[in-house]
Amino acid sequence: MVKKYIMTPGPTPISEDVLIEHGKPLMHHRSPEFGKIFSEVTEKLKKLLKTKNDVFILTASGTGAMETAITNSFKKGDKVLVASIGNFGERFKKISLVYGLEVISLDYEWGEVADPGDIKKILDKEKDIKGVMAQFSETSTGALNDIMAMGKIVKDYPALFIVDAISGLAASDFDTDGWGIDIVIGGSQKGISAPTGIAFVSISEKAWKAIEVSDIPRFYFDLRAAKAALQKNQTPWTPGISIIVAMNKALDLLLEEGIENVFTRHRILAMATQEAAIALGLEFLVAEPGQRGFSVTAIKVPGGIDGKELVKIMRVKYGVTIAGGQGKISGKIIRIGHLGYVGMFDVITAISALEMALADLNYDFEIGAGITAAQKVFNENNYLDK
Amino acid sequence: MVKKYIMTPGPTPISEDVLIEHGKPLMHHRSPEFGKIFSEVTEKLKKLLKTKNDVFILTASGTGAMETAITNSFKKGDKVLVASIGNFGERFKKISLVYGLEVISLDYEWGEVADPGDIKKILDKEKDIKGVMAQFSETSTGALNDIMAMGKIVKDYPALFIVDAISGLAASDFDTDGWGIDIVIGGSQKGISAPTGIAFVSISEKAWKAIEVSDIPRFYFDLRAAKAALQKNQTPWTPGISIIVAMNKALDLLLEEGIENVFTRHRILAMATQEAAIALGLEFLVAEPGQRGFSVTAIKVPGGIDGKELVKIMRVKYGVTIAGGQGKISGKIIRIGHLGYVGMFDVITAISALEMALADLNYDFEIGAGITAAQKVFNENNYLDK
Repeated sequence: MVKKYIMTPGPTPISEDVLIEHGKPLMHHRSPEFGKIFSEVTEKLKKLLKTKNDVFILTASGTGAMETAITNSFKKGDKVLVASIGNFGERFKKISLVYGLEVISLDYEWGEVADPGDIKKILDKEKDIKGVMAQFSETSTGALNDIMAMGKIVKDYPALFIVDAISGLAASDFDTDGWGIDIVIGGSQKGISAPTGIAFVSISEKAWKAIEVSDIPRFYFDLRAAKAALQKNQTPWTPGISIIVAMNKALDLLLEEGIENVFTRHRILAMATQEAAIALGLEFLVAEPGQRGFSVTAIKVPGGIDGKELVKIMRVKYGVTIAGGQGKISGKIIRIGHLGYVGMFDVITAISALEMALADLNYDFEIGAGITAAQKVFNENNYLDK
Repeated sequence: MVKKYIMTPGPTPISEDVLIEHGKPLMHHRSPEFGKIFSEVTEKLKKLLKTKNDVFILTASGTGAMETAITNSFKKGDKVLVASIGNFGERFKKISLVYGLEVISLDYEWGEVADPGDIKKILDKEKDIKGVMAQFSETSTGALNDIMAMGKIVKDYPALFIVDAISGLAASDFDTDGWGIDIVIGGSQKGISAPTGIAFVSISEKAWKAIEVSDIPRFYFDLRAAKAALQKNQTPWTPGISIIVAMNKALDLLLEEGIENVFTRHRILAMATQEAAIALGLEFLVAEPGQRGFSVTAIKVPGGIDGKELVKIMRVKYGVTIAGGQGKISGKIIRIGHLGYVGMFDVITAISALEMALADLNYDFEIGAGITAAQKVFNENNYLDK
């Protein structure tokens, strides 16, 4: 018997309480019973996002919501600035190019964060930029952009600020209205810890003005149809009913814990993971400690070790699924997710499995150093006293 | 205690066995374990569709798959013929127009089916038609088009034949390859009886040639990305994992029953519903008996009765959710779904609730006539001897 653990940055572990809600017989999506749940989920998402803006639930993965933000907000030929710090920044660019936008690429090394000052310089130079796009947590590297600083800059320009917060939400504080974010993109399967298959977007008044004049064709992801349906607490097309019902319970768990406590928990989980990696003599993809997010920790695979083999041993021999590198850093890093329904013993488990797999691959380290370092972080932070 | 029954044409009732699979902890979508299930689901869908063509699973509702078929298959300005017999025919037109296609509308009254001869006449006259679109079962009316006859016609023309079989699949025989259908569109929540949130399309070689030269922009629904990912038994973006796992079990149930037996079961369920309605003195939206499909029966609301009130009484007082009319026939019909994981006592229950609600609304009929007529159909057809 190999007991299974999922420690990836999505899908994340799901609470038994949420799985039970998810597993119930389906309501009809046009029934008042479902309408009530749908309305509750959107209201709870607003609390998580700290926004008074409308939130729209889409039956799609996060990429569908990224496409929704782009196809609804711009006109063909519009100039947009994409700050790219990893795989999902690249995705913003690809989608923008497919839909005929002119993309200004502001690229950083994978493992770095974007410099808000660079964004300001470009906005000052290129007066006709209609949108700025960035990731909050870049899932492929674990780096966390300073969205608050970027928001303070972009709000003084005509451009919309679109933020992919898919893997960052619930791990770190995100203040949609306070930071002036026009469109925030999130997903069901990350910090909210519900099953995969639902994404959502929040839309500011400024964004609505752009949506009303956008000329990029869209139907399934047309937010005007979503807005009309929202008046009846519905979606325009049949939604992923069981996932939305699961999200309702998962959001209850977050709100009962208190979202500030949720952020603290994620910070401590990330710190424990980082201290463990340091104790094992490992290096981080994100060199600057202050730039590491609390959703996922990307660790460089030590020289002489096959990164894909390391992930495979952890999964097959020890039952612990973590993620490898994406895109151009495939095989060069491992990514340990500590996002969502994750407690301290999940981190201890993941680090323990990592140690055992590293030992199998003859990596030179002191057995137990990682889990000991992680446990010290939990002790010192009074993790259980909340 | 009001026990709940769902008798709509989607979502359909879900087997407890399927709900249990659906409720399990999630696998990672890039793991070999999920890849195996993903591969099994696509192979089982091919059996249900009777095709050797590739089948692509999309995380979206059926409307997303309709959009996928259209945006992948055509060039801007292409001429397409839409045979519209109801709300979903209209949707084909709307999507086509949004993406810049020239639409020839072949419209029928809601409750009628399309005449394949009309399609031939138009194809003979308009030589540059690139696609023909039609519904198999038109969910809004319950009418069933003769797709076999249409397929025999369209195959002699350059046009692609795109069929929305979302609510017809598993209720009636559908022979994708035998009938020469280029793109078939289906969903998780209809005859397959899994939860909502997944759709799928099958793509012929002829369709692939069109897809390769299509110039309509698309990203999330780009079938070229789906094809590349399929080589690894994956989807390009995070899919609705729990729904696909549920579909695997739901498809097992259909294949174990034997899909020819599944068709017979649906035919008998539909006949029983029809005989019950006749015994209650009710009329059908689809006047011609041979044009009524086996997924859903649309019944005209008798004069003097409020159709929306009838649906509401059935749902609130008796716990039985059926559907009302869509679009321009809202309030004028009721639709009883007998699709998917539905047995004869589900039909008896729905008819019994209908009788009670009709009695509440002072409709003049003989109490018990409907359920008696339905039961006779089940007896005469040796329903239990399979």
